[in-house]
Amino acid sequence: MNGADILCDTLLANEIDVCFANPGTSEMHFVAALDRKPAMRCVLGLFEGVVTGAADGYARMAGKPAATLMHLGPGLVNGLANLHNARRAYSPVVNIVGDHPSYHLVHDAPLTSDIEGLARPMSGWVGRVQDVNDVSPAAAAAISAARSSPGQVATLILPADAAWNEAGGPIAQARISTPSRVDHVRVRAAADALKQGGRSMLMLSAGGLREGALRSASRIAGATGTGLIAQQSNGRMERGAGRVPVDRVPYNLDRALATFAGVQRVILAGARAPVAFFAYPGKPGSVLPEDCEVIELAGPGDDIAEALEQLAEMTGAPRALELPASPLLPLASGALTPDAIIRAVARYLPANAILCDETISAGRDFFGPTFGAAPHDFLQNTGGAIGVGLPMAAGAALACPDRKVVALQADGSAMYTPQALWTHARERLDVLTIIFSNRKYAILQNELKMVGGGDLGRNAMRMLNLDDPELDWVALAQSMGVEAARSDDAAGFNDLLQAAMGRRGPFLIEARI
Amino acid sequence: MNGADILCDTLLANEIDVCFANPGTSEMHFVAALDRKPAMRCVLGLFEGVVTGAADGYARMAGKPAATLMHLGPGLVNGLANLHNARRAYSPVVNIVGDHPSYHLVHDAPLTSDIEGLARPMSGWVGRVQDVNDVSPAAAAAISAARSSPGQVATLILPADAAWNEAGGPIAQARISTPSRVDHVRVRAAADALKQGGRSMLMLSAGGLREGALRSASRIAGATGTGLIAQQSNGRMERGAGRVPVDRVPYNLDRALATFAGVQRVILAGARAPVAFFAYPGKPGSVLPEDCEVIELAGPGDDIAEALEQLAEMTGAPRALELPASPLLPLASGALTPDAIIRAVARYLPANAILCDETISAGRDFFGPTFGAAPHDFLQNTGGAIGVGLPMAAGAALACPDRKVVALQADGSAMYTPQALWTHARERLDVLTIIFSNRKYAILQNELKMVGGGDLGRNAMRMLNLDDPELDWVALAQSMGVEAARSDDAAGFNDLLQAAMGRRGPFLIEARI
Repeated sequence: MNGADILCDTLLANEIDVCFANPGTSEMHFVAALDRKPAMRCVLGLFEGVVTGAADGYARMAGKPAATLMHLGPGLVNGLANLHNARRAYSPVVNIVGDHPSYHLVHDAPLTSDIEGLARPMSGWVGRVQDVNDVSPAAAAAISAARSSPGQVATLILPADAAWNEAGGPIAQARISTPSRVDHVRVRAAADALKQGGRSMLMLSAGGLREGALRSASRIAGATGTGLIAQQSNGRMERGAGRVPVDRVPYNLDRALATFAGVQRVILAGARAPVAFFAYPGKPGSVLPEDCEVIELAGPGDDIAEALEQLAEMTGAPRALELPASPLLPLASGALTPDAIIRAVARYLPANAILCDETISAGRDFFGPTFGAAPHDFLQNTGGAIGVGLPMAAGAALACPDRKVVALQADGSAMYTPQALWTHARERLDVLTIIFSNRKYAILQNELKMVGGGDLGRNAMRMLNLDDPELDWVALAQSMGVEAARSDDAAGFNDLLQAAMGRRGPFLIEARI
Repeated sequence: MNGADILCDTLLANEIDVCFANPGTSEMHFVAALDRKPAMRCVLGLFEGVVTGAADGYARMAGKPAATLMHLGPGLVNGLANLHNARRAYSPVVNIVGDHPSYHLVHDAPLTSDIEGLARPMSGWVGRVQDVNDVSPAAAAAISAARSSPGQVATLILPADAAWNEAGGPIAQARISTPSRVDHVRVRAAADALKQGGRSMLMLSAGGLREGALRSASRIAGATGTGLIAQQSNGRMERGAGRVPVDRVPYNLDRALATFAGVQRVILAGARAPVAFFAYPGKPGSVLPEDCEVIELAGPGDDIAEALEQLAEMTGAPRALELPASPLLPLASGALTPDAIIRAVARYLPANAILCDETISAGRDFFGPTFGAAPHDFLQNTGGAIGVGLPMAAGAALACPDRKVVALQADGSAMYTPQALWTHARERLDVLTIIFSNRKYAILQNELKMVGGGDLGRNAMRMLNLDDPELDWVALAQSMGVEAARSDDAAGFNDLLQAAMGRRGPFLIEARI
């Protein structure tokens, strides 16, 4: 067995059986080894941003890491933006990055670069295989790091000679961490704080946004008058009819400040204290009032559900929970608008679907109208690095082949990783993509108006408009093997969406808004 | 004036009047300032790999840097692969990367990352603007670094508050380095070495591949019997009919070893000693014989043309130069092959065209048949990070609006940055793209056969074939506003190419080989 075989066996022995890949010459022995392991599902991305974004989406839904395979430093850097998002989502990912043998690095061949330096900012763990005998221990260490709680990005650099040399030795086992139990004293402190007067908010993220945890949170809210809110961006959230409806911290800074105005304490359950997404002249960076107390009930790696349940019990909340009715809004007619799309999605979403949201500006008001949609998982762009939506949808669909995946996708960000559509087609994934085609970087035009005032001049238009030429999303999807259709009026969109929700396999709707 | 205005003025005052951009919210004050400067040409890339690859192509042809504008760490990382290529091409590039204000970094907002850490491996110079009064000096330092000889990538991080705060002060001037004159002693040493017996090779790159330098090199070869060869990958090479025909070091390691077998000394003129692109088990990393002497006549930052002329004079070579005839091969008929494409390109290439080559495997035999093509500049992928071809073509076309740009492009690597086609259309660039559509990672299939032997299994096929589904390049181009046509036979391709060479504006040919 060579090192590449040992690496495959170590991955498989540790429950990693999907590999999102874009290999190169230095990884050929690893490719040959993967070819000898039919138990490993190899999924090609035509660009590494697809590879890492898919690994993120897979991890969020499978609850375990996939492997990625990338080619040296330049391959890795193409995947870094979506690793940034994965890091912010606490997604476990095991990156395998090939490199030259150490004796070849001295020659500074064209593809040579500082892979560790490039990997570190977006990885929780970075390691390099020392030699063939180190392959299995190093891989197990990477997997252990990825599967620490709540999960992180681990990057393992595999020099080509460690892959092609022969060795024996046992296959190493990784350590899988489980969430830490939250100390009773911390729960008690939160309970005591909630007994004091004034306005409190319980802010949720990570495991705090799964159905059971949300029910406990809702019990706490009911018993204590505490407000509930989710972090602005979260890796995964269970929501929809029959589940506790929770809004998120608004992206808009003024609205976020208004949300927390007068709040005297915030209890964090898997969330981080809310901050401005961007800084603005004369505005604060934290969105909490200056004298607001911040109490961490549970960190993202803790057993948040259990902590919330304990807290609910301490508050004496009844176990029964009455959820508010969330009726669906009527379907829209007339011109197609983001609101019309959202109403239709809320109505036609099948039960147990997975919604991948990268709508940026157009989907900001998505939450209210979809509280009554069929139960679904909601996956977001967590780090603000755009281009995760379509790859994440691919990964989620691979993790959950029996569930419909719906990608709500802004046009500007879709153009970061359009190659993901090809993977949707190649793997026959049940992904319905809805392109919110507004033909501009709408979010930036709004920001620029706040900064510059007045109308956009030529240079600003050249940088913020996407209308010359317009992107033809139907042709783009079809060019990569994905069937597609277009709509620019609400009634037509409603019919198209209903039909698309009822079929299986990749499909794209260009929604011209 | 705010810092953003000062930055624009500093760029313009230092001859930087093109900005390849993909901005975000943290760069809005800079966008507003650019909007007030009609002298700056702002060119949007829908993905940062387009931005940096275009800046590379622009620099190679304009001989001076463009600016890029990228959004925080995640924007930068998307551009790093092509900065890696720019670094290997010695292309001057001035990256402006926005960041949060320092007082906001402490909040670790979602988009926060270690920008310096990410920039360093692919940049020759990294700096951060300290405050608004530092904007102009820091920008001038970045430009000076970029314009050191032979040129490098400089990355300047611009915190948002340095952009929005107000200041006065003078606009700083950058220092533009010129190539260093090579010491007479070094030239003498090279001349003496060439007088000794045995086989010598003069290896050229950088400024050594421009027309005048090549003529001197050819005189040296004629007078001394020295062989001429170009580095395998070079930023820019002047070639074609009436110019000195020089081959490159082969990519294939065995062929490269054969090229240098028996060579006793290599004189480097802007080139680096040749090494294997990848390491292989049991094969050497250097392609030179063990006892081969390496003499550096001139480094890439030196005045190579002048050094070569001096050396030619020392060898007593006559000034007149007789170039070998390089007749064109007849056009092909039958099935379309890479060879048929190359013959047609050689025949129909207009004078003074710019050829951007990212053919990977399909264009390996490009050089011989095109020695007799009309004079042209030849730009290559210099760092092995694929996805530079289409962006580089955009940058070259912007630098040289009166010259035809022809992008010879492998399909696999084209899928790394297909968004560049949109920029071709938006800027009405005179770029003709020829997609070598072989529907596979051919180079990797060859490599895998050497490693694994035998037929590819399912996993290897899933990672190295692009045929399920096939990419429809005509639809893909049209979806981004580029007219396109397809051919799969040589006669049809010849006609199509001739017609396409005769029109202006962006066009794409899907050549099914």
